[in-house]
Amino acid sequence: MKAGCPHITKTMDNIAFTPGRDGVVIIDQTLLPCEEKTVTVTSREEMYGAIYSLQVRGAPAIGIFAAYCLSALANQAGEERFEDFYAQLKADAGYLNASRPTAVNLSWALNRMLGVAEKNSRRPIGDIQALLYNESLAIRNEDIAMCKLISEYGLSLLRDGDTILTHCNAGPLATSKYGTALGPILLGAERGMKFKVFADETRPLLQGARLTCYELDKAGVDVTLICDNMAGMVMKNGWIQACLVGCDRVALNGDTANKIGTSALAVIARHYGVPFYVLGPTSTIDLCCRSGDDIPIELRDPDEMKTLFFTKPMAPEGVTCYNPAFDVTDHSLITAIVTQNGICYPPYEESLPALMKPKAP
Amino acid sequence: MKAGCPHITKTMDNIAFTPGRDGVVIIDQTLLPCEEKTVTVTSREEMYGAIYSLQVRGAPAIGIFAAYCLSALANQAGEERFEDFYAQLKADAGYLNASRPTAVNLSWALNRMLGVAEKNSRRPIGDIQALLYNESLAIRNEDIAMCKLISEYGLSLLRDGDTILTHCNAGPLATSKYGTALGPILLGAERGMKFKVFADETRPLLQGARLTCYELDKAGVDVTLICDNMAGMVMKNGWIQACLVGCDRVALNGDTANKIGTSALAVIARHYGVPFYVLGPTSTIDLCCRSGDDIPIELRDPDEMKTLFFTKPMAPEGVTCYNPAFDVTDHSLITAIVTQNGICYPPYEESLPALMKPKAP
Repeated sequence: MKAGCPHITKTMDNIAFTPGRDGVVIIDQTLLPCEEKTVTVTSREEMYGAIYSLQVRGAPAIGIFAAYCLSALANQAGEERFEDFYAQLKADAGYLNASRPTAVNLSWALNRMLGVAEKNSRRPIGDIQALLYNESLAIRNEDIAMCKLISEYGLSLLRDGDTILTHCNAGPLATSKYGTALGPILLGAERGMKFKVFADETRPLLQGARLTCYELDKAGVDVTLICDNMAGMVMKNGWIQACLVGCDRVALNGDTANKIGTSALAVIARHYGVPFYVLGPTSTIDLCCRSGDDIPIELRDPDEMKTLFFTKPMAPEGVTCYNPAFDVTDHSLITAIVTQNGICYPPYEESLPALMKPKAP
Repeated sequence: MKAGCPHITKTMDNIAFTPGRDGVVIIDQTLLPCEEKTVTVTSREEMYGAIYSLQVRGAPAIGIFAAYCLSALANQAGEERFEDFYAQLKADAGYLNASRPTAVNLSWALNRMLGVAEKNSRRPIGDIQALLYNESLAIRNEDIAMCKLISEYGLSLLRDGDTILTHCNAGPLATSKYGTALGPILLGAERGMKFKVFADETRPLLQGARLTCYELDKAGVDVTLICDNMAGMVMKNGWIQACLVGCDRVALNGDTANKIGTSALAVIARHYGVPFYVLGPTSTIDLCCRSGDDIPIELRDPDEMKTLFFTKPMAPEGVTCYNPAFDVTDHSLITAIVTQNGICYPPYEESLPALMKPKAP
């Protein structure tokens, strides 16, 4: 790839948002790759909207963003009694948590923030606000560290020169630095390794075309864009050595919710003997879900499918649409799950709980 | 589906083009579903462009259209000697045949037209022009009859109430009346049977979203649009009783070239135990191709993927794209191939050649 969009001049930070005292500054991902615009969200409605509309997306990024948001909302609080302050914080967390149901990182981060407030109920509100801010930064900094570790573990599964297939976007924009599924590729590129990547465009909202191609190009990685329905041919051609995907929620048995289309890729990869790796932080593993049947799947607005970015009609106006944002890949199709604590192999019921605890140094 | 595009008022004929003396009138399929506009193509460049740009598409339709075109070009001929007339006709056929490489119906129809001219070399040019016109009508009328038979055979594989998954468009717009893959559904609907259809949108040019949904809606069939990457989930959900797809070229061993994404669907269908049926006239079977390796696959303009209908950017400007228009589904994944001469089961090396000959009445 030679040229990006000509009107992008700013160099994007390695994280798509920064906290402010009363709001959060985000890169509006719906406008990428052709416009790199930041937006400041301050009200809880704007925060909810930023998640729902995918201005901020990617399971780990949603978690970090929600923590920043809750910190900003806490700073806006006028309450003087802890009970009132906490009741409002809890209501705000519940409201934000309803924005998207599938990625567990959202509730994980919000609960972690609420836990900090609860644990410090006897301290002045000002102190709690400071602690919440620190916790949100910790969630972000831990994510950076986790992504680095995930990238290292993922890289150990690849060989220099491999061609990788990925779906949706699980790079820096979806996390913090490196990303999850793109982490090994970006880390390897930093070390002079040469990977080739095929990026599924990822309909309906084209996160692969818009974001993955954009991020890999910026990093100088050889990337080729394909439509989702071309992944089968690319694997049939024998071009792919590994599939790397992110995850939005992993159940105890290894069943993995990720962007719609992931489960089909896994079926195809199995058919053609291509290893299929899921990469994500342990915050994405939800041991309360015994299997994928317990994972809620978000259904989204049919207009995402029928009109491209809500402007150009692409189908008969009144046509019925089915628009699930995620699907569940059966654990039997997943070669390994890569976390910051190591690489998890089947049977996942045993390996996942064991890996949830950090290893002794 | 309740409402079509509000500005469609005309009722489309069951065939997407009609012959004129010096030209062919086509419905410009690139504008559907929101605009039902006819275009008359008279020059060979316009005819080539109509096929290449997919104003006319679908393997059988391309065959019929090419025959009409060759008849119209023959009518424009000023030559008086057969040798000159035939040389020009052959040059025109060769030119049109280069417009798209994968669907064999194109060369099949053109060769059939050339054969008529050759066989009547001693007759006056005017007679040959009339014979060519008649031959083009015969090709069209035979297609209508074949589609009806294919629909009948296909219908025998379904049960009332079944839910069908289809990919791309293999309805009347791609053929003549009924279509191939949509034929059993439309014929069944005429008889009061209730099918439910999931239509893959079929990136990059959205023939499923734009044409299949449009045709099924007009016929009162319950259709739900999905993105291509949702087909796996729909099959995993257990919602699909059969996949029906058309074909652009079938090799001797049953390997089948069809719209990109078909081979992935077949892999997924096999994984979930869903029967996978290919439907097409015997003119699509090319016994000269021993396997799919012999079928040329058309690579198309990356801008089809990067900009929707060449207007709205959907990916970084300079990104490398791989844009095959077709893929080859391995014969081992095909439950049966349905032709106007009957239903063909494996081993296809035996059943296909046997079926190429019409059955005795």
